[in-house]
Amino acid sequence: MAGTRRRTAIAALALGALIAFAASTSAADPLPSWNDSPSRTAITGFVERVTREGSADFVVPSERIAVFDNDGTLWAEQPIYFQLAFMFDRIRELAPEHPEWKTQEPFAAVLAGDPARALAGGNEALMKLAAATHAGISSEAFDDAARQWLTTARHPKTGRLYTEMVYQPMLEVLAYLRANGFKTFIVSGGGIDFLRLFAEEVYGIPPEQVVGTSMQASYEVRDGVPTIVKQPELDFLDDGAGKPVAIHLHIGRRPIAAFGNSDGDFQMIEWTTAGPGARLGVLVHHDDAEREWAYDRDSHIGRLVRGLDESAERGWVLVGMKDDWKSVFPSKRD
Amino acid sequence: MAGTRRRTAIAALALGALIAFAASTSAADPLPSWNDSPSRTAITGFVERVTREGSADFVVPSERIAVFDNDGTLWAEQPIYFQLAFMFDRIRELAPEHPEWKTQEPFAAVLAGDPARALAGGNEALMKLAAATHAGISSEAFDDAARQWLTTARHPKTGRLYTEMVYQPMLEVLAYLRANGFKTFIVSGGGIDFLRLFAEEVYGIPPEQVVGTSMQASYEVRDGVPTIVKQPELDFLDDGAGKPVAIHLHIGRRPIAAFGNSDGDFQMIEWTTAGPGARLGVLVHHDDAEREWAYDRDSHIGRLVRGLDESAERGWVLVGMKDDWKSVFPSKRD
Repeated sequence: MAGTRRRTAIAALALGALIAFAASTSAADPLPSWNDSPSRTAITGFVERVTREGSADFVVPSERIAVFDNDGTLWAEQPIYFQLAFMFDRIRELAPEHPEWKTQEPFAAVLAGDPARALAGGNEALMKLAAATHAGISSEAFDDAARQWLTTARHPKTGRLYTEMVYQPMLEVLAYLRANGFKTFIVSGGGIDFLRLFAEEVYGIPPEQVVGTSMQASYEVRDGVPTIVKQPELDFLDDGAGKPVAIHLHIGRRPIAAFGNSDGDFQMIEWTTAGPGARLGVLVHHDDAEREWAYDRDSHIGRLVRGLDESAERGWVLVGMKDDWKSVFPSKRD
Repeated sequence: MAGTRRRTAIAALALGALIAFAASTSAADPLPSWNDSPSRTAITGFVERVTREGSADFVVPSERIAVFDNDGTLWAEQPIYFQLAFMFDRIRELAPEHPEWKTQEPFAAVLAGDPARALAGGNEALMKLAAATHAGISSEAFDDAARQWLTTARHPKTGRLYTEMVYQPMLEVLAYLRANGFKTFIVSGGGIDFLRLFAEEVYGIPPEQVVGTSMQASYEVRDGVPTIVKQPELDFLDDGAGKPVAIHLHIGRRPIAAFGNSDGDFQMIEWTTAGPGARLGVLVHHDDAEREWAYDRDSHIGRLVRGLDESAERGWVLVGMKDDWKSVFPSKRD
């Protein structure tokens, strides 16, 4: 009787396990928006190698760190970086409080609807725009303004919310890596506070796993209220050789997988793939003028030269959006 | 028959659940090294409130962020900060390569075995010692030297490894919080790279959840090898008002619980407890001259003045090591 009960219980548990197995195999394709291509195989092959216990390439879960650039890698970056679009909109919004901007560059150019002229001033102009839109206010006030923009502003070409301009195949890669025990991080040239406002909801990446460019900040008790105040000076520019440095500071160990799309990601991928054991370096190549944009060597944004020239010899995966991706953006609009 | 099978299976599952429950209740006391005191009740009461679904104070797991100072909060800090002991030992180790140190302060004082004189030079002396021991080398070379020290150097009073000078009751708090869905972080005035070498093994806190004081760093390809090189300039001093700023930069959201022991933790606890909903601020008070050390207002290390004066009115928990803790350090030696 006891034996029968035990066998019956085991049968019931086995049935449960079978049902669970069926559910997992019916959702077996973790990358449904990827064509069956060498790029896709390089990604899944790497994940299988580092997660197979007993494999020479096995990596313990705590060391499964994957880093992703954002602009041009997880979401689009044309016709201008989306955070710049936020800055321009914010300048227009704040203009009534700043009559002097009508005659001061780069503000005058923004107000005249001439972003190219505004950006012609280079880094100096950019820092002026950043200081005027990202500083002198509490972290909460900044978050409110940027969140408001993110939930209402529309992309000029597609009419989508900017957070709907993310790449469906990359969302799948993020989820696939996490399902395989990876911890996913953003390491972006974009603003760290700006990124954190949507990274958790859109990418499933919590604030503490977002690394980006930062402005200095101070802590003050203002009228009795403890406050983080964003300052107008640059703290850290998270681009190029800055990316491995930021990874070292924020993550404290070398990733085993890195995804980027421009030469600003070169050192991050170089640093990642130079470690021992199995490594994965991926560059997304924007070669799809029809569904997205086509640009590389001569682009003013997301310039890709070294990555194109050296990815083959370095064993990095060059993902072609046109041939490797079944769809680009989420939902039916694509 | 099918009904019988189902009932048998359910009974078997229920039995399993009972066994699991018994196992969890037999390990019911998550804080065995704490006396049954108001401090202990304040900690467990807070955790119960924020984790009880439907409670007005319920906090979703992703927002359950707890931050811990290290020196004097998780491990001891007498007679000098342990990282200073590492610096002094390292100076002696490197001295043969630097004959000029025999006549240069603060190195001469260190080599003469006079740490007080070495530290009399204040921050300037400290930065010279840090630059000589923590900079000009690759991150890997630094890690090797510090790891070697951590696994061999002994505390002058107890003869223990420094990593055995951690507080058993605080190890229990860390585990208890994590078992209740918290993510635990270190936010320390100590060096971020130094802390990361033992935080995962000793505290269960991975490198990416360690925040500390940092030196600047650069990324270079040295003889074909991508390398992070530690630089002699201070990057960020993670103390006092710097702590909320570092929390904002590294974690990106306000913690709901903060643990410290000195006025260098005041702003971190102030920032944490000023948020809405249930909050927990804890100060460890070193009042146990027999089992540890007794110091507060007049100490050169871990000075605690504002914390003592204001903790009651601010609703912060003042943990007395002498009365609140059954034991101080792990194992039988206590």
